[in-house]
Amino acid sequence: MIKDVLITRLKIIDTPGGNVLHAIQKNDYGYISFGEAYFSEIQNNKVKAWKRHREMTLNIIVPIGIIRFVLFDDRNDSDKKLQQIIISRDNYVRLTVPPMIWLGFQGLYDDISILLNVSNIKHNPEEVDKKNIEEIDFNWSK
Amino acid sequence: MIKDVLITRLKIIDTPGGNVLHAIQKNDYGYISFGEAYFSEIQNNKVKAWKRHREMTLNIIVPIGIIRFVLFDDRNDSDKKLQQIIISRDNYVRLTVPPMIWLGFQGLYDDISILLNVSNIKHNPEEVDKKNIEEIDFNWSK
Repeated sequence: MIKDVLITRLKIIDTPGGNVLHAIQKNDYGYISFGEAYFSEIQNNKVKAWKRHREMTLNIIVPIGIIRFVLFDDRNDSDKKLQQIIISRDNYVRLTVPPMIWLGFQGLYDDISILLNVSNIKHNPEEVDKKNIEEIDFNWSK
Repeated sequence: MIKDVLITRLKIIDTPGGNVLHAIQKNDYGYISFGEAYFSEIQNNKVKAWKRHREMTLNIIVPIGIIRFVLFDDRNDSDKKLQQIIISRDNYVRLTVPPMIWLGFQGLYDDISILLNVSNIKHNPEEVDKKNIEEIDFNWSK
């Protein structure tokens, strides 16, 4: 596991008329502060990669669909590893991504998939680094 | 409009591979503090009603489906009115519900609908009042 990346199992509460699904509470491990909550959709097989936040900690939940997340850690003190996690209703977890980790994700669901990010700061393009998909070696087609 | 209830239009940002949808930022009108974010699903035609929070301010977003929200204000200083709002991708708004308003909601989408609530306090059953659906007069079938 990449250092400081957290995977936290979340509760799904069976409720008449429709379930209740936990996302994040202020006392949860991985929660720092509230900056913004936003959704990002990802179409089937499409990839959004790569982004690295220099300040933002991401807390990602997938209420709909199936999303493959790939993290790449090239921090100086790390052993430069890639890590993959597939999140869906069947693996209903919160993914906490600290700053300075490269992140890409891919839809693996025949309809659209949606992630919620509850982040500690508001979106600010000045703290985001980007790479083209081919700049970090990962086989997205397998 | 019921006093202190806010309806705030949100941005949907057209993005290759899947759109980005705003939900709430810390400086937004209607945001107080962060307690919890959770999802609630609602099946087609099903109703969840009625609940009144004595302390929680709700900030509700509907990323998937179509949900009818009905609010009933019976506060002493109010004119006891009902208000309905239907939220979907076609009317992509955030609904801010202050404490002491009765709230019910219904799925109006043939698949499941989902709401996100970003609330100022964590879920606490002791600050929630409930009524049975028939205790507040509203025709959910029309």
